[in-house]
Amino acid sequence: SKRYTITLLPGDGIGPEVISVATNVLKLAGSLEGIEFKFQEMPVGGAALDLTGVPLPEETLSAAKQSDAVLLGAIGGYAWDKNEKHLKPETGLLQLRAGLKVFANLRPATVLPQLVDASTLKKEVAEGVDLMVVRELTGGIYFGKPRGFGKNENGEEIGFNTEVYATHEIDRIARVAFETARKRHGKLCSVDKANVLEASILWRNRVTAIASEYPDVELSHMYVDNAAMQLVRNPKQFDTIVTNNIFGDILSDEASMITGSIGMLPSASLGESGPGLFEPIHGSAPDIAGQDKANPLATVLSAAMLLKYGLGEEDAAKRIEAAVLDTLSRGYRTGDIHSAGNKLVGCKEMGEEVLKSV
Amino acid sequence: SKRYTITLLPGDGIGPEVISVATNVLKLAGSLEGIEFKFQEMPVGGAALDLTGVPLPEETLSAAKQSDAVLLGAIGGYAWDKNEKHLKPETGLLQLRAGLKVFANLRPATVLPQLVDASTLKKEVAEGVDLMVVRELTGGIYFGKPRGFGKNENGEEIGFNTEVYATHEIDRIARVAFETARKRHGKLCSVDKANVLEASILWRNRVTAIASEYPDVELSHMYVDNAAMQLVRNPKQFDTIVTNNIFGDILSDEASMITGSIGMLPSASLGESGPGLFEPIHGSAPDIAGQDKANPLATVLSAAMLLKYGLGEEDAAKRIEAAVLDTLSRGYRTGDIHSAGNKLVGCKEMGEEVLKSV
Ligand SMILES: CC(C)[C@H](C(=O)O)[C@@H](O)C(=O)O
Ligand SMILES: CC(C)[C@H](C(=O)O)[C@@H](O)C(=O)O
Repeated sequence: SKRYTITLLPGDGIGPEVISVATNVLKLAGSLEGIEFKFQEMPVGGAALDLTGVPLPEETLSAAKQSDAVLLGAIGGYAWDKNEKHLKPETGLLQLRAGLKVFANLRPATVLPQLVDASTLKKEVAEGVDLMVVRELTGGIYFGKPRGFGKNENGEEIGFNTEVYATHEIDRIARVAFETARKRHGKLCSVDKANVLEASILWRNRVTAIASEYPDVELSHMYVDNAAMQLVRNPKQFDTIVTNNIFGDILSDEASMITGSIGMLPSASLGESGPGLFEPIHGSAPDIAGQDKANPLATVLSAAMLLKYGLGEEDAAKRIEAAVLDTLSRGYRTGDIHSAGNKLVGCKEMGEEVLKSV
Repeated sequence: SKRYTITLLPGDGIGPEVISVATNVLKLAGSLEGIEFKFQEMPVGGAALDLTGVPLPEETLSAAKQSDAVLLGAIGGYAWDKNEKHLKPETGLLQLRAGLKVFANLRPATVLPQLVDASTLKKEVAEGVDLMVVRELTGGIYFGKPRGFGKNENGEEIGFNTEVYATHEIDRIARVAFETARKRHGKLCSVDKANVLEASILWRNRVTAIASEYPDVELSHMYVDNAAMQLVRNPKQFDTIVTNNIFGDILSDEASMITGSIGMLPSASLGESGPGLFEPIHGSAPDIAGQDKANPLATVLSAAMLLKYGLGEEDAAKRIEAAVLDTLSRGYRTGDIHSAGNKLVGCKEMGEEVLKSV
């Protein structure tokens, strides 16, 4: 039987609760497909800060690098928000992405038929939304140098960051996006601000150049302000979206809220080689942490992405996806997606129901 | 009687059509309030590029500077989109904002009772939305230096821009935002990405410092990705939002689409002194230019903002606002906001109906 080592990074807030559910689902789905997992749990984020003084201890990064895939819960919380100039839990997440070189972040936003009412958009606008945001994850203004604080000519304090992209960074994310679009509905929309930013002009030129390798994919370009509007006006117009790190952060969160069920949405972060990083797109939700109220399905679906994109185990992935849909069809709902006529359950019970469906 | 000089910048696409309507409305509302206008029309954007080779001729900027207020139609269009490295019409708009030093861009997003069905959001979510985005307009990544193209250590081509804010830039926009919130419902939400960007950490620190001057305003902070979600989830939670240039570009467009009637939304751009710049937030809509299909109401309402914020002529401003509401209540609609049971009219006819209501 096949064996994989998975690094578990529960992190902060509801992270440990949702990771625990997803781990059980992985175990069962794996065993039914002849896959054996070795799990190693490591600290990250605020939990690591409290324990070791840094948000990404060296041991965590090297364990992650040596494993076959990494499953992360959530990072951050009010507790560490106070002192803006000190190390933040979030820094650990950025260091982890950079350390694993996972430059391509895939964020699906799908409106499930069972959950169409969860969206604040009108039913006819939300129904059938099924898009994928491909976000560049290890470049741009998140990592660009120079950055920091300083003084300007007048001796006044300034804060500054650099948005910068090199051709190879754009080329490789563009290829991931074209490949993704090719496996989906063959439409790719590249989002930038090329009417204002030089970094975006290079982005648009390179994406256009790479398009010649994918004549079967229909490429369009959109300014980021227009994209933010179009996601509200008619999200169904989108198939695959590719964009830079900061625009991807904003647009993928907007897209996820359009589905109305951010507690349902997984993500995969992939590099050229080496282990991928898989995490729900929701945050650490400190207000409900430890209360058995979290929706574990985003993390369960992240485990499915781990199987599919991280290990190439499509059958086990499909098994988990089908189990989630079946559990929803049987009427089980956590508080965030609950509506009249359904069965309200907590995080653990939702996990048990998914296990029954696996 | 009072006299003001207004610079009219029709610009591109539907710009000339909507400016013509708004000018007639200004004239009539003014004359009824004992105000006389001198209008001077100047080229800007693509129109100026074609005419003079630059998107903001010196004569246009100096005329604008010497007038009491500037009313702009729209800028840009496919016709000038081709050559990314050449001068773009949009550059003229950025130069105009910088030249007039209008650092504070006020963008209301209001769901009018008459138009609640135009939103793609569910009625109960859209109804009653009434928020104001205060966007920093002459700083940040739009203007930060260094910027441009170059090579990195590996000799690879790069494109780069600088997000930079100095304390005085943040302080002055924060004060405008606090003043705005004070006149509205006393709630200000500052949007940044302080968990990642140093420029945002300074932003958050300065906004927090300025808050002590406005103890009557309730200040909160939100990350930009969360703000993009919250606008879809529950836009009614917002009163006044203050944010930087690029986040303001994205969030104000998202907010405007949430109202469902982007053809209705005006904006005001103000400096410490000197003339303000007033423009609809919609673009030049080249696809319907010259067809008498544009909705002129955003520009008419921009003229009302010009009277209120630019000239302090509140009575004339209210007269125009009331006329727009009355025209809508009488059932007149341009194509973008039309629904069954209403009277579909073109741009000119809409203008004539507004004149009847003034
Ligand atoms: C926590 C934060 C640093 C992170 C980001 O901005 O990338 C988060 O918002 C995300 O999208 O995963
Ligand atoms: C046309 C463009 C340069 C402009 C901007 O980004 O500021 C527009 O999108 C706006 O919001 O007024």
